[in-house]
Amino acid sequence: MKLLYPNTLKLDPAAISGFPTLTLHSYDAKAPTLPSDLLDAEILVTWANAPANLAFAAKNLPQLRWIQSLAAGPNDVLAAGFDTARVKVTTGSGLHDRTVAEHTLGLLLNAARRFYEMRDYQMRGQWPGHLGGPQPDREPGTFRTLRDARVLVWGFGNIAKCLVPHLVGLGARVKGVARSAGVRAGVEVYAEDRLAELLPETDALVMILPGDASTRHALNKERLALLPKHAWVVNVGRGSSVDEDALFEALEAGEIGGAALDVFAQEPLPEGNKLYKAKNLVLSPHAAGGRPQGAEELIVENLRKFLAGQDLRNVI
Amino acid sequence: MKLLYPNTLKLDPAAISGFPTLTLHSYDAKAPTLPSDLLDAEILVTWANAPANLAFAAKNLPQLRWIQSLAAGPNDVLAAGFDTARVKVTTGSGLHDRTVAEHTLGLLLNAARRFYEMRDYQMRGQWPGHLGGPQPDREPGTFRTLRDARVLVWGFGNIAKCLVPHLVGLGARVKGVARSAGVRAGVEVYAEDRLAELLPETDALVMILPGDASTRHALNKERLALLPKHAWVVNVGRGSSVDEDALFEALEAGEIGGAALDVFAQEPLPEGNKLYKAKNLVLSPHAAGGRPQGAEELIVENLRKFLAGQDLRNVI
Ligand SMILES: NC(=O)c1ccc[n+]([C@@H]2O[C@H](COP(=O)([O-])OP(=O)(O)OC[C@H]3O[C@@H](n4cnc5c(N)ncnc54)[C@H](OP(=O)(O)O)[C@@H]3O)[C@@H](O)[C@H]2O)c1
Ligand SMILES: NC(=O)c1ccc[n+]([C@@H]2O[C@H](COP(=O)([O-])OP(=O)(O)OC[C@H]3O[C@@H](n4cnc5c(N)ncnc54)[C@H](OP(=O)(O)O)[C@@H]3O)[C@@H](O)[C@H]2O)c1
Repeated sequence: MKLLYPNTLKLDPAAISGFPTLTLHSYDAKAPTLPSDLLDAEILVTWANAPANLAFAAKNLPQLRWIQSLAAGPNDVLAAGFDTARVKVTTGSGLHDRTVAEHTLGLLLNAARRFYEMRDYQMRGQWPGHLGGPQPDREPGTFRTLRDARVLVWGFGNIAKCLVPHLVGLGARVKGVARSAGVRAGVEVYAEDRLAELLPETDALVMILPGDASTRHALNKERLALLPKHAWVVNVGRGSSVDEDALFEALEAGEIGGAALDVFAQEPLPEGNKLYKAKNLVLSPHAAGGRPQGAEELIVENLRKFLAGQDLRNVI
Repeated sequence: MKLLYPNTLKLDPAAISGFPTLTLHSYDAKAPTLPSDLLDAEILVTWANAPANLAFAAKNLPQLRWIQSLAAGPNDVLAAGFDTARVKVTTGSGLHDRTVAEHTLGLLLNAARRFYEMRDYQMRGQWPGHLGGPQPDREPGTFRTLRDARVLVWGFGNIAKCLVPHLVGLGARVKGVARSAGVRAGVEVYAEDRLAELLPETDALVMILPGDASTRHALNKERLALLPKHAWVVNVGRGSSVDEDALFEALEAGEIGGAALDVFAQEPLPEGNKLYKAKNLVLSPHAAGGRPQGAEELIVENLRKFLAGQDLRNVI
C-alpha cells in the first residue's frame, strides 16, 4: 500500500514508518502531474499543493481511499473534484492551534494597543502622543486592553481552546459560540441562536469558523449592527464567513471600532480593493498558520486507525 | 497630618481613609503652584504632575516627609529638587505590571509576526504575500514566533515577573538578567557579568531597566554586536538605557533584526529624529503603562507603615 507525502514541508518519513504493508513516497506537490509509478497510491497527504496537482490526483488515482490534508480547513482538496463517496478526507485541525492562537493574540493586542495607528504616525515622522502617556484605565466603551475585555470567540474548536487560556491569563472575560452549547475548556459556549444577546456585550469578536456553506456571511450587516461602536472584529477562520461589503460600511461609518483580518473572500486581496484603505482595518496576509506542527503524529495516529478499520480523527 | 492626592487620575479617597490623624486633600497636579492652605502637608502623592508643580512643591512644603509616586520610575520627582535627606520617595512599582507586560507581549508579537511590515504594505495598497501562506516552522536564525524563542529579560523586577508567564505559556525559553543572580519566578536570572555569554544566544532581548546612572547606555555598541543578526530588542524600561546612535547603526547595517521601543532618550522623540525611519524600528509613544492599577492599595499599605514607623514598600 502506497502513501504519498508532499515535498512542501519538512516531514520525517522515519517518524511515520513501521507499518508492514505500507511504503512511503515523496511527491512534488507543486507539479501539474504525479509520476506514473505512484498512481496506484491509496493514501495521499497534502500540503500547499498546486490546484493542478490536486486536480490531476482527483482524476488519476483510481485506488485512492484517504486524503490526509495538513490544513485545518482543506478547502483546496474539497474543491479539487475527488470522489468523496470513495475517498475519505481528514483535516489537519490541531496542527495549527499554537501558531494561529499566537497570531490571533497578536492581532488582538495590535488592535487594543493601536500599533497599526502608531505605525502610520511613525511613517509620517510624527509622534503619536495621543496614544501614549498618562491615560484612563479600562474606560467603559473602549477596547484598549484585554484586561476585563469581553471577548466572544465564534467557532470554538481546537484553535479556540488553545487561544483562550492566553486571553484569560491577560484578564479577558471570554465566552464562546459554536453549533452546540456547553462548557468547553472552562468557557461558557453558546449556540448561534444566542448571538443577538451576546454581540451587544462584546468588546472583541474573534471569528475562527471553517469556510463552508453553513458559515457563509455569518457576520452580516444585521449582526454587525448589534456590536457596540468600539468593538473590534478579528477573523482568522475563513474570509467567506464575513460579508466584506457590510464590514467595509460598518468600518467607514464608525459603527464598529475596527477589524483585523487574516483571511479574505479572495486571496490575495485584489489590488485596488477598498478594504486596503478602510478605516481601522488591519490586514494580515493569511499568515496566522501556514506551518503545521506535529504532522507526523497525526499521520501515524490516523494510519494506525485506517489500517485497523477504525474511525479516523478529523474526518470532514 | 495632611496627605495631598493628585487630580490626574481617578482615586477613591474613601479607599484610603480611616487613619485617625490623617486628612486627605485633592490638588491640581497640572497647576504651577499649590494652594496656601495645603503647604503644611507631610505626604504627597504624585502622578503625571507638571514639572512646575513638582518644582513648586520641592520649595514650598517645609513639612513634607514622604512622596508616594504612582510611576514605576519616578524620574520626574527625582529631578524636581526635593531634599531627599528629609523626604522619602517611594515608587509605584507594581501598579504598572499588567499594563506594561501586556504592551511588551504585544510588541514582541508585532515584531515576530511582522505586523508593522504588513501595515506598510497595506498602506501602499499591496498584499504582503511574502509574510503569509505556507512557510517554514521555527527556522533557526529567525525570530518569527515566541514558540521556542530564546527571550532574555534584562531588568527582572515586578514587570518582568508579570510578563514571563505569558511568554512561557506561548512556548518561549526565558532567561533573565538583574543585579544579582538566582532563580526568580521559575526563571534563571543572571548577573550582568554573564551578558557576553547570554546575548549571542538571544532571539529577543526585552529591556525593563529603570533609568538611573547605573543603567545609562547599558545596551551599547559592544553589546549590540554580541546579538545574532536576527535578534530583536524591545525596550519598555527607560530610553536612557539604550545608546540610540549605536542602535540606529546596528539597525541600518542589519546587524540586528529590529527594535521595538516604547521609551526614548528624549520624549516625544523630536521631529526629524533619524529613529523614525530606521530600518525595522517599531515606535511606541511611551504607551505601555500610564494607567496605575491598584494605587489605593499601595497608598494604604505604605500609609500604615509610615504611621507605624516601619520601612515603606518601594523605597528608592
Ligand atoms: N488563518 C489561518 O492561517 C488558519 C489556519 C488554520 C485554520 N484556519 C481556519 O480555522 C478554522 C477552524 O479551525 P479549528 O482547527 O479550530 O477547527 P475545529 O476544531 O473543527 O473547530 C471549528 C469550530 O467551528 C464551529 N462551527 C462550524 N460550523 C459552524 C457554524 N455553522 N456555526 C457555528 N459554529 C460553527 C464548530 O462548532 P462545534 O464545535 O459545535 O462543532 C467548532 O467549534 C479552520 O476551518 C480553518 O478554516 C485558519
Ligand atoms: N514604558 C512604560 O510605560 C513604563 C511603565 C512602568 C515602568 N517603566 C519602567 O520600567 C522600569 C522597571 O519597572 P519595575 O516595576 O519592573 O521595577 P523593579 O521591580 O524595581 O525592577 C527593576 C529591575 O531592574 C534591575 N536593575 C536595576 N538596575 C540595574 C542595573 N544597573 N543592572 C541590571 N539590572 C538592574 C533590578 O535588579 P535587582 O532585582 O537585582 O535589584 C530589577 O530586577 C521602571 O523603573 C520604569 O522606568 C516603564
